[in-house]
Amino acid sequence: MSVVNAAILGFGTVGEGVYRTIQSHQEELEAALGKPVKVVAVLVKNEHKSREIETDVLVTTEIEEIFNLPDLHVIFEAIVDKEPSFTYLKQAIAKGCHVITANKEMFCYHGQELLDLAQKQRVGVGYEASVAGGIPIIQTLQQLLNINNVTAIQGILNGTSNFILTEMREQKQSFEAALALAQQKGYAEADPGNDIYGCDAFYKLMILSGLVFGEQPDLKSVKINGITGITLEQIELADQWGLRFKHLASIEKKQERLHASVTPVLVSQSHPLYHVEGVDNAVNVTGDLVGDITLQGPGAGMYPTASAMVEDLVHVLQKPAGEKARNKAASKIIKENGEQDASYWLVSNIKQEQLSNAGIDFEQLEESFFAAKASPAQIEQLKEQEDGTTVYYPIVGTFELKNEHKETHLIGAHG
Amino acid sequence: MSVVNAAILGFGTVGEGVYRTIQSHQEELEAALGKPVKVVAVLVKNEHKSREIETDVLVTTEIEEIFNLPDLHVIFEAIVDKEPSFTYLKQAIAKGCHVITANKEMFCYHGQELLDLAQKQRVGVGYEASVAGGIPIIQTLQQLLNINNVTAIQGILNGTSNFILTEMREQKQSFEAALALAQQKGYAEADPGNDIYGCDAFYKLMILSGLVFGEQPDLKSVKINGITGITLEQIELADQWGLRFKHLASIEKKQERLHASVTPVLVSQSHPLYHVEGVDNAVNVTGDLVGDITLQGPGAGMYPTASAMVEDLVHVLQKPAGEKARNKAASKIIKENGEQDASYWLVSNIKQEQLSNAGIDFEQLEESFFAAKASPAQIEQLKEQEDGTTVYYPIVGTFELKNEHKETHLIGAHG
Repeated sequence: MSVVNAAILGFGTVGEGVYRTIQSHQEELEAALGKPVKVVAVLVKNEHKSREIETDVLVTTEIEEIFNLPDLHVIFEAIVDKEPSFTYLKQAIAKGCHVITANKEMFCYHGQELLDLAQKQRVGVGYEASVAGGIPIIQTLQQLLNINNVTAIQGILNGTSNFILTEMREQKQSFEAALALAQQKGYAEADPGNDIYGCDAFYKLMILSGLVFGEQPDLKSVKINGITGITLEQIELADQWGLRFKHLASIEKKQERLHASVTPVLVSQSHPLYHVEGVDNAVNVTGDLVGDITLQGPGAGMYPTASAMVEDLVHVLQKPAGEKARNKAASKIIKENGEQDASYWLVSNIKQEQLSNAGIDFEQLEESFFAAKASPAQIEQLKEQEDGTTVYYPIVGTFELKNEHKETHLIGAHG
Repeated sequence: MSVVNAAILGFGTVGEGVYRTIQSHQEELEAALGKPVKVVAVLVKNEHKSREIETDVLVTTEIEEIFNLPDLHVIFEAIVDKEPSFTYLKQAIAKGCHVITANKEMFCYHGQELLDLAQKQRVGVGYEASVAGGIPIIQTLQQLLNINNVTAIQGILNGTSNFILTEMREQKQSFEAALALAQQKGYAEADPGNDIYGCDAFYKLMILSGLVFGEQPDLKSVKINGITGITLEQIELADQWGLRFKHLASIEKKQERLHASVTPVLVSQSHPLYHVEGVDNAVNVTGDLVGDITLQGPGAGMYPTASAMVEDLVHVLQKPAGEKARNKAASKIIKENGEQDASYWLVSNIKQEQLSNAGIDFEQLEESFFAAKASPAQIEQLKEQEDGTTVYYPIVGTFELKNEHKETHLIGAHG
């Protein structure tokens, strides 16, 4: 081919960003690919809406019109929901097109099938933009995985909920006020459920699981807790202990078992994600050779996301066709999911006798707020004994109770 | 080839790390390359020293013995100083070997020549380990550069000096005590000059300049300031303003001009490198599409560095032979270097009249310590008028004087 012909499915923020980037960065694309890239078609919902698209581009509501185009090489998919995206991309691959997607929900559920199909058809699949926007986490992991055994990933994968938590702490706002501001600034959708209940972060985490461990835990059994239960009072109390709430998506392989969760945790200053604030995303990767590396940057936005998708274009066109999927075989992994394996917890809505009776070391900050040192088993035991209103947040990063190193081992020193 | 035959030049920390990694990660290498990798020779200084190397490996002090081996495919170079490394790698390329180096000084001065030679010989050059150890900054930049115009890079590129500055602030240590601890912990060499005077960071910055901008500023004219002049008193005063000293290596392209420097600066909490502590390295990259992304991780160490070099092996063997060097053409760049273009400065050893007379806004913290709002031109003017003992540190990140937003524009409110 002397020109790379591309179609874009969807012309929302992401689709339009890809279009504008291809228009404005032709020189870079020609330098990288040795030929120009031309957007020949755009799939839209409403044909009559006014858009700034060159007149020689086919703008249509009919996917078949796009598939009937001769010499189509690449499909950029920038629509939401699993369907019809998955069906469209299967069709595109069957027709020999490379596909590049930003659709995290679809790729969470159907990514492996698309990768398998693409390998048979000797085309490429790019999904960098589906996780953490402009941060090149997929390609970085693919490189690291050539040699490293990656054992754990933890990330802040949803900018909206991180913005809300930051805003609550810094501006002493209620959850509702911070959410309203996020919506006003365009970070949160009119329906912000995917962000604040943790589904969006969950999709991204499962995509990373597939890449790093070669498979996903049973999706329905992964524990997903949103940030809606976090109060300003809790945030301020945690702050007094030097702790911050972060909505942490984490997956870890320990003793051949996968442990995955998306849940609010309290992180201390030594934790690599303590300082990630506002709408930024960040991912911390632990490899057996490289140790811990952290990537931080914009997790969304028109141009960061477009940057990731257009980089994917260069990547799929440059790499040898039919290169085997790099997902690691992981046949020995027993699927499982679990709580953060924490030793310390912030526990609220509990009576101190319940902690004392369970033999748990703790410190009291306010009437019903305690920092406790307890094993996951002890926490499970507590849960069985209380009425279901108690809240438990794991504390990660270096932390200890103030009374912990006293010679006499006091239980509940402030009690 | 059915086996990849490799030689390692040097068997210090890095060379030994590469050897051990290739031994321990054969499974991963075979999965990535489709064939095993065998270390067939190691170049050492002293043949008689006892080392844990398999008996079928040629251990020699003579480079010619290595070059005379049949079917040698890759050279890992892990020695120091420009020579004889550069000569060895030129010879290796001429013989059709891929070369992978961790030698920042050599690659700073001779990298472009090696890349040009390798392109002619259709072999690869890997230099990921030469900058920021295990952090995959070279490959990340190569990817971003496919599409993004990278306009600025700033990094903490020397773990030893960052450790010293962290230790001084956290433990209230003198420079000398922190340096002694760095040496005791094995972070600093017996001769730590390259670290604390900034040469090590300078070499790495110039390698990044070649990659990102396609050329380097005139090396002799780049301003390099070490950290030896920073006192505990200055660190504590800065801390009162919420500022931390960081030894910042930065290069920026503004109006087609390159500005490069390696110098201590004061960063405020909003700065992306404020939180980088201890021996970690970090690099912040600004691209026109992606915005700001930051990579942080171990900048040195046996296995992080080996991880980068062995990933390079996979990379050079997987990519099409003779792929053009990805360095950007940058013929329009006028070479230049300059100070940080700061608006705020910490100025010490100066009289407040000198600041007042120069029409500079300032605040006094202690007798001869001032935070000042001044243009680089005003700072230049000050320097001309004083006796050369005054110290100026640029402040980067969001910062303002406490009196700045008062209605009456006071000059030197505390004076």
